[in-house]
Amino acid sequence: MKKLFEPDGIAIAGASTNPTKAGYVALRNMKEKEYPGNVYPINPNETEILGYKCYGALSEIEGNVDLVVLIMPARLIYNIMDDFDKRMEEKHDVKYIVCAAADYAETKTEEGIRRQARLMESAEKWGVRVIGPNCIGVIDNRTKVDTTFVDTGVPFSEFGEPTGITFISQSGALASAILMEAAGRVFPVLYNKFISIGNMADVDFVDLLEYLENDDTTKVIGMYMEGYRDGKKLAETLRRITAKKPVVILKVGRSEKGSKAANSHTGSMAGADNVYDAMFKQYGVIRVETIDELIDTMQALDALPLPKGKNHFLYSQAGGPGIYCTDAIAAAKHLETPLVSEETKERLRASQLPMANICSPEGYADITASATVANHVDGLKIVLEDDAVDSVTFITVVPTFLPQIELANALVEMEKSIPAEKKKPVYYCVMAGEYTAPARKIMEENGLCTFNTPDKAVKAADNMTRYALYRRRKAGEE
Amino acid sequence: MKKLFEPDGIAIAGASTNPTKAGYVALRNMKEKEYPGNVYPINPNETEILGYKCYGALSEIEGNVDLVVLIMPARLIYNIMDDFDKRMEEKHDVKYIVCAAADYAETKTEEGIRRQARLMESAEKWGVRVIGPNCIGVIDNRTKVDTTFVDTGVPFSEFGEPTGITFISQSGALASAILMEAAGRVFPVLYNKFISIGNMADVDFVDLLEYLENDDTTKVIGMYMEGYRDGKKLAETLRRITAKKPVVILKVGRSEKGSKAANSHTGSMAGADNVYDAMFKQYGVIRVETIDELIDTMQALDALPLPKGKNHFLYSQAGGPGIYCTDAIAAAKHLETPLVSEETKERLRASQLPMANICSPEGYADITASATVANHVDGLKIVLEDDAVDSVTFITVVPTFLPQIELANALVEMEKSIPAEKKKPVYYCVMAGEYTAPARKIMEENGLCTFNTPDKAVKAADNMTRYALYRRRKAGEE
Repeated sequence: MKKLFEPDGIAIAGASTNPTKAGYVALRNMKEKEYPGNVYPINPNETEILGYKCYGALSEIEGNVDLVVLIMPARLIYNIMDDFDKRMEEKHDVKYIVCAAADYAETKTEEGIRRQARLMESAEKWGVRVIGPNCIGVIDNRTKVDTTFVDTGVPFSEFGEPTGITFISQSGALASAILMEAAGRVFPVLYNKFISIGNMADVDFVDLLEYLENDDTTKVIGMYMEGYRDGKKLAETLRRITAKKPVVILKVGRSEKGSKAANSHTGSMAGADNVYDAMFKQYGVIRVETIDELIDTMQALDALPLPKGKNHFLYSQAGGPGIYCTDAIAAAKHLETPLVSEETKERLRASQLPMANICSPEGYADITASATVANHVDGLKIVLEDDAVDSVTFITVVPTFLPQIELANALVEMEKSIPAEKKKPVYYCVMAGEYTAPARKIMEENGLCTFNTPDKAVKAADNMTRYALYRRRKAGEE
Repeated sequence: MKKLFEPDGIAIAGASTNPTKAGYVALRNMKEKEYPGNVYPINPNETEILGYKCYGALSEIEGNVDLVVLIMPARLIYNIMDDFDKRMEEKHDVKYIVCAAADYAETKTEEGIRRQARLMESAEKWGVRVIGPNCIGVIDNRTKVDTTFVDTGVPFSEFGEPTGITFISQSGALASAILMEAAGRVFPVLYNKFISIGNMADVDFVDLLEYLENDDTTKVIGMYMEGYRDGKKLAETLRRITAKKPVVILKVGRSEKGSKAANSHTGSMAGADNVYDAMFKQYGVIRVETIDELIDTMQALDALPLPKGKNHFLYSQAGGPGIYCTDAIAAAKHLETPLVSEETKERLRASQLPMANICSPEGYADITASATVANHVDGLKIVLEDDAVDSVTFITVVPTFLPQIELANALVEMEKSIPAEKKKPVYYCVMAGEYTAPARKIMEENGLCTFNTPDKAVKAADNMTRYALYRRRKAGEE
């Protein structure tokens, strides 16, 4: 699968000069990301698009082409594949086709099925692997390959370095939405790789999982799934991978009606949801319920070390949000209350204002609205130093009189002062809205994980802990 | 309570020239909102702040003062109340005190309790009502009163007209967070009134509810609650109000541990959560679980008509998000599948592209990623015209080639074309992120209700329907 993500030469059938067309946006994405390799737009009516020289046909491109992207209308597939055959007879170069267009077998029409068959006929003849059709394409932000036609509305320069998160989506629309949601966060999230697999005419979940298993830059795998034909194979693959790296899945078709809708969508056999659910539980897959939870959990897994155990401390600057969060922790399945030492309590008290509430109830501190930056940071460090604490949710509302940039920098410094082997996950809830965006941005840029409401922080903490416990149990069995 | 929200003259003890102090931000908020009445900062060391003339003491203010705001450090309460007594002996004018500062009885220290007693002693002597202490103040965005010291980070000019939503919060921090969260939305939400009640030394939930019951500009009441001492009175008041207008409550202390934390916070007897829960259910109160759900539900209740019944249609431009949403609808307690007429199905088919999925399963349409603006709007109108449909969730991912501004305007026009008596609630899910913010802003400005993920739209739809069914049942009983 390496050449898919690091191709030597990309040809784009359906390239366009019209900024509202997919065949333009895909080229613009590649241009904006400064993909360093050769890009060959195919469009017989143009000489160049966005500075890339245009070609009349795939067979006319002189240079090497590892990857062909099909974004032209599906009805043109017959001509395109005839020309593809011509090229392959001469050059034998293409290794991958990403067929982004829709109107193939997913329509369940005779014509749609025939088109997909034509695509696959040539691909199989030449041993070329196909992604799609009916997908939005493939991204590798490390090699700067981006065949998608998604405009996130956020300039590429505002993203940080690629994360360790790789995402596979069975729905193109959901893939777009997730790319856009992640881009719209306070600090835009750049995925490591992003693969929309559409109809899975050839390359499917398992093919990709097998590749990602040994892809060192992929630290966390996320998936949106409607169903998969070979449950046994999927289960075996997942079991092997979750022993090494976390897999987070948003699987739809929980309800009977959702399952029916899934069948009529990608035509995939969704299968009984409880079978998937049991399999995910057994094999340490983190199943999430919402899009927010999916993105939050993937980010936390990427940014933070796994906790050693269940003991979760709540360190809050605000009473109301603290109680709200206490309820969320009580409802979490994998979090328990740590009993910190008397020494820690003493040190905590000494580090805080007199009205601070220390450990009443246990595992909880309310440092109050008057807390200074030093109160915020010093107390958190003391909590993290207690052996009874495996992870912490930190909450602050950032009152007007609290300098938020100073707070953000002090928290970053404190985190940096902890040696890697002693690091514990802290879920920073910095409420709320636009006002605290500057602080959150600094924190996220420096690898801290922030949330805007306590319930979201706790969901991520619960999911991380669940996975950590699975890994510990697995390691014990070996 | 009228003079609290429409005071003739506001004095602010603790006014400051320091932009990081509460006593400055409160003045600045009033200035920015262009409060038309007299504002009298009290600060013996200044001659004017932000253009307002400063006074050395409350008793020195010549003009009428209906409302006194206390933002000075709590230890000064003795001097302030002595001077307050002096003023009242001479002028008898003050009707309300908003005591925003903390460090009163909530600290459970002797000194804190004594301070609060001193405050209440004078207030009771003169028949003056007190809000607080330990709160963030009071807002009325219609009369432009804003005694809070919350900086939302969003210029006031970016908000629309005041909504019909009035919010009461027992936690100052949660109140700030909700103000800021709402301000940070794609189209900033301006509350009608906003009251942080803190320690409830005097004015409490029931006092405010009784006033809001007959406040015509308040259409929806939202509350954050930790507990209330007189459950019976609260229940009676809520029962009376929910027969007229919706009440949405985020009540914390669900868990035993949360309940303990609540007790040690505001000192309020949180009481057994299941008692509250049963009371809320019986009296038609909409209990929500998260901050997001709270804000979404209040906004939907404010912007949309109540549905006539449970039948909820899902109209989606995107397969994956459609299936995801189908699961959410199946999990909702108060939504059912409508069976639209054959005529509606025919009309829908005729309005859409050939590959559109119409009513398979029932109550569901997937108009596909290729849908034009006209496909989006025309089909939705047809669905709304079917008598079997009480409400609709609409989903679009807004592909690059779909002009989002044109779509937003067309949806607004379509909604405007429906006569008021035939209006049905539509929950518009416009995924995702920053890219679609321009479209969502236009829609929200024109009274449409938008969401960024389908699960949130469905939560709001479920809550609206639950309340509509309660109202119908109550009306039937009379």
